[in-house]
Amino acid sequence: MRLITEVASAAGINEEHLELYGKYKSKLSPSLWAELKHKPDGKLVLVTAVNPTPAGEGKTLTTIGLSQALNAAGIKTVAALREPSLGPCLGMKGGATGGGKAQIVPADEINLHFTGDIHAVTSAHNLLSAMIDNHIFQGNALNLDPQRIVWKRVMDMNDRSLRNIVTGLGDGNGTVRESGFQITTASEIMAVLCLCNDLADLKKRLSRMLVGYDQLGQPITAKDIGAVEAMTALLKEAVKPNLVQTLEGTPVIVHGGPFANIAHGCSSVIGTRYALKLGDVVVTEAGFGADLGAEKFMDIKCRQAGLTPSAAVLVVTVKSLKYNGGVRKEELYAGNRAALLSGLSNMERHIENLGKFGVPVLVALNHFEGDAPAEINDVLEACRRLGVPAAVSKVWAEGSAGGQELAQELKKLLDREEAVKFAPLYEDNLDIPSKINKIVTEIYHGAEVAFSPAAKRSLAVIDRLGLHQLQVCMAKTPYSFSDQPRLLGAPEGFTMGVRDITLSLGAGFAVVITGNIVTMPGLPAKPAAEGLLVDEDGVISGLE
Amino acid sequence: MRLITEVASAAGINEEHLELYGKYKSKLSPSLWAELKHKPDGKLVLVTAVNPTPAGEGKTLTTIGLSQALNAAGIKTVAALREPSLGPCLGMKGGATGGGKAQIVPADEINLHFTGDIHAVTSAHNLLSAMIDNHIFQGNALNLDPQRIVWKRVMDMNDRSLRNIVTGLGDGNGTVRESGFQITTASEIMAVLCLCNDLADLKKRLSRMLVGYDQLGQPITAKDIGAVEAMTALLKEAVKPNLVQTLEGTPVIVHGGPFANIAHGCSSVIGTRYALKLGDVVVTEAGFGADLGAEKFMDIKCRQAGLTPSAAVLVVTVKSLKYNGGVRKEELYAGNRAALLSGLSNMERHIENLGKFGVPVLVALNHFEGDAPAEINDVLEACRRLGVPAAVSKVWAEGSAGGQELAQELKKLLDREEAVKFAPLYEDNLDIPSKINKIVTEIYHGAEVAFSPAAKRSLAVIDRLGLHQLQVCMAKTPYSFSDQPRLLGAPEGFTMGVRDITLSLGAGFAVVITGNIVTMPGLPAKPAAEGLLVDEDGVISGLE
Repeated sequence: MRLITEVASAAGINEEHLELYGKYKSKLSPSLWAELKHKPDGKLVLVTAVNPTPAGEGKTLTTIGLSQALNAAGIKTVAALREPSLGPCLGMKGGATGGGKAQIVPADEINLHFTGDIHAVTSAHNLLSAMIDNHIFQGNALNLDPQRIVWKRVMDMNDRSLRNIVTGLGDGNGTVRESGFQITTASEIMAVLCLCNDLADLKKRLSRMLVGYDQLGQPITAKDIGAVEAMTALLKEAVKPNLVQTLEGTPVIVHGGPFANIAHGCSSVIGTRYALKLGDVVVTEAGFGADLGAEKFMDIKCRQAGLTPSAAVLVVTVKSLKYNGGVRKEELYAGNRAALLSGLSNMERHIENLGKFGVPVLVALNHFEGDAPAEINDVLEACRRLGVPAAVSKVWAEGSAGGQELAQELKKLLDREEAVKFAPLYEDNLDIPSKINKIVTEIYHGAEVAFSPAAKRSLAVIDRLGLHQLQVCMAKTPYSFSDQPRLLGAPEGFTMGVRDITLSLGAGFAVVITGNIVTMPGLPAKPAAEGLLVDEDGVISGLE
Repeated sequence: MRLITEVASAAGINEEHLELYGKYKSKLSPSLWAELKHKPDGKLVLVTAVNPTPAGEGKTLTTIGLSQALNAAGIKTVAALREPSLGPCLGMKGGATGGGKAQIVPADEINLHFTGDIHAVTSAHNLLSAMIDNHIFQGNALNLDPQRIVWKRVMDMNDRSLRNIVTGLGDGNGTVRESGFQITTASEIMAVLCLCNDLADLKKRLSRMLVGYDQLGQPITAKDIGAVEAMTALLKEAVKPNLVQTLEGTPVIVHGGPFANIAHGCSSVIGTRYALKLGDVVVTEAGFGADLGAEKFMDIKCRQAGLTPSAAVLVVTVKSLKYNGGVRKEELYAGNRAALLSGLSNMERHIENLGKFGVPVLVALNHFEGDAPAEINDVLEACRRLGVPAAVSKVWAEGSAGGQELAQELKKLLDREEAVKFAPLYEDNLDIPSKINKIVTEIYHGAEVAFSPAAKRSLAVIDRLGLHQLQVCMAKTPYSFSDQPRLLGAPEGFTMGVRDITLSLGAGFAVVITGNIVTMPGLPAKPAAEGLLVDEDGVISGLE
């Protein structure tokens, strides 16, 4: 690892703009923005993927490896990534910092507390929760309806026991009511942090957040509760982007980590903006597959921030395509050409969809040891047939050297004469049901949308409050285009059931809940936490 | 503010041993200990106080001001303080970084997230909680009794609604059971962090922590749950002491912040050890009045760590003595000589008690604007009569200049020829009821101890498990020597009711709960959070 001061210096950042967290992590001071803001923006490249499968696609890995490869090819590149959440790190997933020779470092610190941003979101969120219950306890001047409080509590932990709880039990402990915890990354405050332009915008968005309704059905916001300034105080460091490096010294901005499910799942707008001033190319990622992640990246993040992506890299693996072709998890290591060819439908669908945003696509075939040359060839051949450039990426095994082909293909795409004609999928002035319908039919390729009675009641509230200008943030299983996790490949003609619609007024979107979305994960039978070891010098192993 | 690198350098710390958090905060690397450990220790001075009253005594203020004054007098001094807890900062109390010209800085950062230590404790604690419920959910191989889980969850927030909750409601969310949240500073992990010698000792103590009992009544520990290594990983940065400075550039180690109630309420042993190597004098403090704070400092912290305090400074104020003499809060600004003279009994009792530990005492009369010269004279005269040195301290208004008299009196005490004959109050080999009885009769001056049926059951468990070698950690109202908050002055002859006894096996003590001790505070009608303001540059006001 190089000192972060050296990484910054190579990226053109003077040490006076750094707020160091140890020797290898730094926050970037707002003073840097004053210096950067007049510079031209680099080109923004989104790394997305086919629908996620049990073998893993390597989206973060590819983002890191590609940025290393571009730098090695002489193109000044910065990566912009999300912060890992502690809950999944200690639960099912392990770390989220890439792997092999395409990693960001110091991995254990980034995976654990990093610079405290997620803890700050937890504190700000739970302060508002405490102030809501305290408001009721102290006389309820706002006439808040305890049955219609929509603001829960959060914890950055996988803890299913906290999903549904009853609070306020016992004498003198307030009003007994049902509530629950979400994981912190599912907090609207995390979405707000990731979408805001600066501290002033953060404050405005926090003010708008809906916490519940009064006895007359009027919305009550965080501003009404009086929590906005204190939440801002708690978040004032968290809004500053974090700088780290890859194993090859590529500068990486790791900032913000919203749940890709009930939020938009992209790293922060502020971090992306800094990166665009620092790099000629910025490689970033979005959560889950392109049906969820890329759609929200384009329709929510880029729209709100006025960003224009120049290209999308779609990560596929031989295994993920075979899985989408019907091969069971246990049999993914064996060859199965029929399944592979069938599973290519998933890739094709995503390529077609990305085209609808006017953004050119490059396929990155993330190579796994054991992939047969014939299988690789089948994927590349399919891309040729579709007229889409593709390259095999071996960044896990080889670092930047294994990403040269991918980097060169991307360079060709970025150098093309034609201007990118990026546009979001839907217009802001469409009503919410039409926005949902457009995503379901054009991206998911479903036949129709069915709203539950609860969803219809929510739509009535949206009507009454005049909130149709909101964007929609789909909460859907990532495993299928449909709302049924086992419907793999490229299903069509299904009905999409909308169970409920909740309002994230600070983030600026309505969350459309389909299927059984859980916002607080549980721990598996053998949590990743049990596999950790710390030696007497504090060196951690088992967090890969 | 000087750069923390400069403050460190002046204290003899090479920059290579610093792990910076911004420009004004730093963690001290374990590599520094390797360099320091062979040096002789400085002298340890405890700042404690009479029983706390609504006007505030200024213990932290005096600790900071005295260390500034000693440095100004040419005595190389380091202060060792506790970290403020976010909950009270945003609730009733506001910041906890001193005041006036005796403050530690950067105050807002120290008061909010600081270097993330308390967040790390929260994460480690709640990981264990999640793993306990997950263990039951995944088959309960340990046969843990869901009705006898003693490990709750924690949050660094004042939130009374979380005191008593029911978790695990709903389908697939685990076992429904009663539980609750404590404030993070009440976590046993915070006590463990503050009492451990190093990372290896931390791990040993975490292993021993009791989480509940199995169906046969056998204790189940954190080690049995498999959480120890992961908790250690989460705490590996938090065990490193933090360096900041006072307004006058005096180095201050701010590390650890255990609840002074159900824990021992002192800053960390590790931080104190570093301070003793860096300063010829180290000024530290303990929570609440001397009946709780100083007793635990001597009997728990100094005993466990093998530290020998050289002097105790007892902070008194004219107001606090009048209050102890029966004056109501609203009338403290008016003169009332009879009440003052009566309230001096509280000071006398604490002086007498401190003598039982063999430690010389100095009274610091913390001066408030409006204190009448005659009142001040009455206090000083009482000290002369008792043969105890005393000095008026004006460090709030004047900084080190206002602490010169106090510093000189302390210097005389420390320069005396006679060796300090420090000894804890009770021997380790006494049984738990005898230890409790000794504290109640000799420190509190009560007549006897009455154990509730629950406390008797706990004593039976202590018998059965052979745990009498534990120290006792009294959880008592801080406002009175007795268990009745309104019994001010120097009450005698009362019966001390012990409601329950809980086991902190990692910290090494049994918590003796008297009266109605709440381990999760609530917010007041007008929380301090509502008074905060953040300007567009992120500058916070209202956190004093």
